[in-house]
Amino acid sequence: MPRTGRRPGPARTRERILGAARTQFGREGYDKATLREIAAGAGVDPALIPHYFGSKEGVFLAAVEFPVDPALFIPRLLEPGVEGLGERLVTFFLETWDSPAGSSLLALIRSVVSSDLAAELLREFVTREVLGRLAVAIQLDQPQLRASLVATQLVGLAMLRYVIKVEALKSASREELAGWIGPSIQRYLTEPVV
Amino acid sequence: MPRTGRRPGPARTRERILGAARTQFGREGYDKATLREIAAGAGVDPALIPHYFGSKEGVFLAAVEFPVDPALFIPRLLEPGVEGLGERLVTFFLETWDSPAGSSLLALIRSVVSSDLAAELLREFVTREVLGRLAVAIQLDQPQLRASLVATQLVGLAMLRYVIKVEALKSASREELAGWIGPSIQRYLTEPVV
Repeated sequence: MPRTGRRPGPARTRERILGAARTQFGREGYDKATLREIAAGAGVDPALIPHYFGSKEGVFLAAVEFPVDPALFIPRLLEPGVEGLGERLVTFFLETWDSPAGSSLLALIRSVVSSDLAAELLREFVTREVLGRLAVAIQLDQPQLRASLVATQLVGLAMLRYVIKVEALKSASREELAGWIGPSIQRYLTEPVV
Repeated sequence: MPRTGRRPGPARTRERILGAARTQFGREGYDKATLREIAAGAGVDPALIPHYFGSKEGVFLAAVEFPVDPALFIPRLLEPGVEGLGERLVTFFLETWDSPAGSSLLALIRSVVSSDLAAELLREFVTREVLGRLAVAIQLDQPQLRASLVATQLVGLAMLRYVIKVEALKSASREELAGWIGPSIQRYLTEPVV
């Protein structure tokens, strides 16, 4: 980094902290990552982090903020109607993971598995922002269970394709995977309860 | 280690073999690691390993604390035939997680997510010993892809029910979950490729 003799502006500092936090949470998981290391990665004084984000939890929430906004993508996926929703959801999910945003999702999954706190944080977020919206939109019975079943299939897909990197899934196309997995998701969302 | 001039007892020998196995599997991967090298690492006669663990697979299962043996459970699940296999697989999977063995599965998932090396080891093992057996037994096209799709659904179920602990999944019964998820697994295993 060039030394200009000037401090970076606040927006730039914030971004640098978040970038370092993503790296650190991704590499170490939530519990082992420290504000000191994050500050070192960002090249800033550790005291600045609480100033911007309050706490390690605050940095985490900011750093893993979903790369996509559920308030936007859920209505968009639902817009063509319920038919084909399963396949559209899988395709959208894979497009997001295959985009640059995928690296923050990977960091998120690592943190969630290594830390009960991170799991708790994500659960709160997903329940409120994602499942809640789906539940309202679809207006079916057992909306929480249905949305959670959808999540099992999508999270598992991410685990095997992007974390464990199973060859058969890594080399499959998004269309192929949507064709296989879409109908499961569709069934979780719309099949009447037996 | 103190030299007492006496042979170590069986429990101690077993532990030494497991320690050497973790090192060896970690360094070489599942396929390349040999019983001879593991024995050398543990400072024991190679003939002792089959005595304690039966086979390389047995040492691996013990070393990673994998609580169930695919050589036993896969034939048992397949025995009643292909029909209903999906539901039986989900039920067996949840019974294992809900048993005391669940804690070592949790540890395994955590190490896989936090370590590329562990992911690599588990991938090799699961591909050969679990997916390979299923593929041979079911004799369908694209066996690797099908078995991997099954794994996405099961791993995701474990993630949300046991790691992230989503309430709707935690409070659902095994029968209920098998009823929802079983048909997806059945489809991945038996549905003709489109």
